[in-house]
Amino acid sequence: MPVNKQWLLVSRPKGQVSPDNFRLVESPVPDLGPGEVLVRNHYMSLDPYMRGRMDEGKSYAAPQPLDAVMQGGTVGEIVASNNPGFVIGDKVVGPMGWQLYGKSDGVNLRKVDTRQVPLQAYLGAVGMPGVTAWVGLNMIIAPKAGETVVVSAAAGAVGSVAGQLARRRGARVVGIAGGAAKCRWLVDELGFDAAIDYRAEDVGAALDRHCPNGIDVNFENVGGATMDAVIARMNTFGRVALCGMISTYNHSGPVSGPADFARVLMRRITIRGFIVIDFLPRAREALAELTPLVAGGELKWKAHVVDGLENAADALGLLFTGAHDGKLMVRISPEP
Amino acid sequence: MPVNKQWLLVSRPKGQVSPDNFRLVESPVPDLGPGEVLVRNHYMSLDPYMRGRMDEGKSYAAPQPLDAVMQGGTVGEIVASNNPGFVIGDKVVGPMGWQLYGKSDGVNLRKVDTRQVPLQAYLGAVGMPGVTAWVGLNMIIAPKAGETVVVSAAAGAVGSVAGQLARRRGARVVGIAGGAAKCRWLVDELGFDAAIDYRAEDVGAALDRHCPNGIDVNFENVGGATMDAVIARMNTFGRVALCGMISTYNHSGPVSGPADFARVLMRRITIRGFIVIDFLPRAREALAELTPLVAGGELKWKAHVVDGLENAADALGLLFTGAHDGKLMVRISPEP
Repeated sequence: MPVNKQWLLVSRPKGQVSPDNFRLVESPVPDLGPGEVLVRNHYMSLDPYMRGRMDEGKSYAAPQPLDAVMQGGTVGEIVASNNPGFVIGDKVVGPMGWQLYGKSDGVNLRKVDTRQVPLQAYLGAVGMPGVTAWVGLNMIIAPKAGETVVVSAAAGAVGSVAGQLARRRGARVVGIAGGAAKCRWLVDELGFDAAIDYRAEDVGAALDRHCPNGIDVNFENVGGATMDAVIARMNTFGRVALCGMISTYNHSGPVSGPADFARVLMRRITIRGFIVIDFLPRAREALAELTPLVAGGELKWKAHVVDGLENAADALGLLFTGAHDGKLMVRISPEP
Repeated sequence: MPVNKQWLLVSRPKGQVSPDNFRLVESPVPDLGPGEVLVRNHYMSLDPYMRGRMDEGKSYAAPQPLDAVMQGGTVGEIVASNNPGFVIGDKVVGPMGWQLYGKSDGVNLRKVDTRQVPLQAYLGAVGMPGVTAWVGLNMIIAPKAGETVVVSAAAGAVGSVAGQLARRRGARVVGIAGGAAKCRWLVDELGFDAAIDYRAEDVGAALDRHCPNGIDVNFENVGGATMDAVIARMNTFGRVALCGMISTYNHSGPVSGPADFARVLMRRITIRGFIVIDFLPRAREALAELTPLVAGGELKWKAHVVDGLENAADALGLLFTGAHDGKLMVRISPEP
């Protein structure tokens, strides 16, 4: 009889999240009731939003409960079914969390076709991060041809899609990322007009060089000094889609706004915070656009796969150091 | 032969503006060329935006030149005319600046009717401040019935109109102003639902008391700690019309953004800086709505009149201490 393995959140981080905040436990594989299915997860997603959920009441959603299985997106396959909508072997995306097996009544599961798009991509470019990028681009900032768009965390799961979509709209796209390899990937593979390595260059000076006409649009994933450097160079009527501020998520104190806030007034800048869950009715439309682009190789993506559920708590830290390269996920069980 | 009197900006303030930055000079009344008119100004407007113009390149418009007549809005009457569009005695609004006499080709002058709306109001509720309030309300934040709107500098020329327009849309309106008399005026005369005296109360605690359902909309004129207290209490999908930050205009250093910027993301808040000049094509529509309301006494306003052009440089300081009560203006010459 197989055994389930689950990661629980056992304490709330003070500032920096640590593997000590989690505990790996074994438990029986759940019994299925009428209409339920059992999923064996192949990959679980690690995403920046998870850090906010670990705090009491700080995030937009209810906090992750203590001593409960860590919530999160997964892809896996049906291994038992009492539900006529699913048969054994179906591949599904869902919120099964940090565990080997999860059960569901099927409502929160989406069957996916892995013949043209690999399973991993459903956690990235054709999953929640891809939809986030699509929403930010289309619903929040809507860059026009010829505008200069700066994307931070540009090699990340969201930023890489956002930048490619902006390029497809004819914008000039400059990415900010950590490391020469990521920057090369952005320019050589993804077609960004330029990339700035924040580890090696002064971001402000590099923005001056790569954005000679200033910055019209900012898809912001990082916050802090990176965001300050971008906003300080924004043109009149500039728009900021505030999607994330990963540089600040492990701070315990308040996070103050743009260092030159007077510019927001003088340049008539719009800053809009957004969260993908507010746009879920548009997800189908987003995926209808993203899926063929990914299948056809026009929209490129990369996964950074950490092997083994037992390494999930350690792997989470990669998000905040930027040591990962591509959409961060953990392989829980091998794909058949 | 009458003599013109003019205030020149002779030095750029470092931080706090001072009367020493200006010089009052006498000069000949200008001769008129073909098509030109001579205006004797009755009132000149003192407005917060003037402070930004005194700095080199900090504002949205070209800086006020040194050793030139201070620019600014005026109301006055035609005293000589070579222009068939104007006759002696016509009352006009225009940008004649800080001087007794100004000449114009008429293009930047608007004839006004003082039979139902007094001349002073054309510098306030039916002038640039009124249009600013109308634009912010209608184009930027569009409060809905039942929403809670907080207006800072609520007894000011812009804030008082913004708050009354929000009330007319059925919103719950809370004003922040300095002093018990201003607060009483807001509630008793203008119909605000509540007013907070920032000199006497903790603004945050008072907001908690007067906004039990949080804050949906902020018409922001003050910036700094006042804005921080408002944004810290904003509801999901809150909107901020960033119209001014008068608390910061005399600072020489950078002005940082909201102290709790993480809330902008978590609560999906939109902050939009705006300037009335970007919406000038809508001014006619705004004035068409505001003028009958002012004429009919439904939209209330107040002028704080400082007597004598020679006192203009001193009077400017009132804007930043909040010691004025109503739209601040200087009487340059008596209305006939």
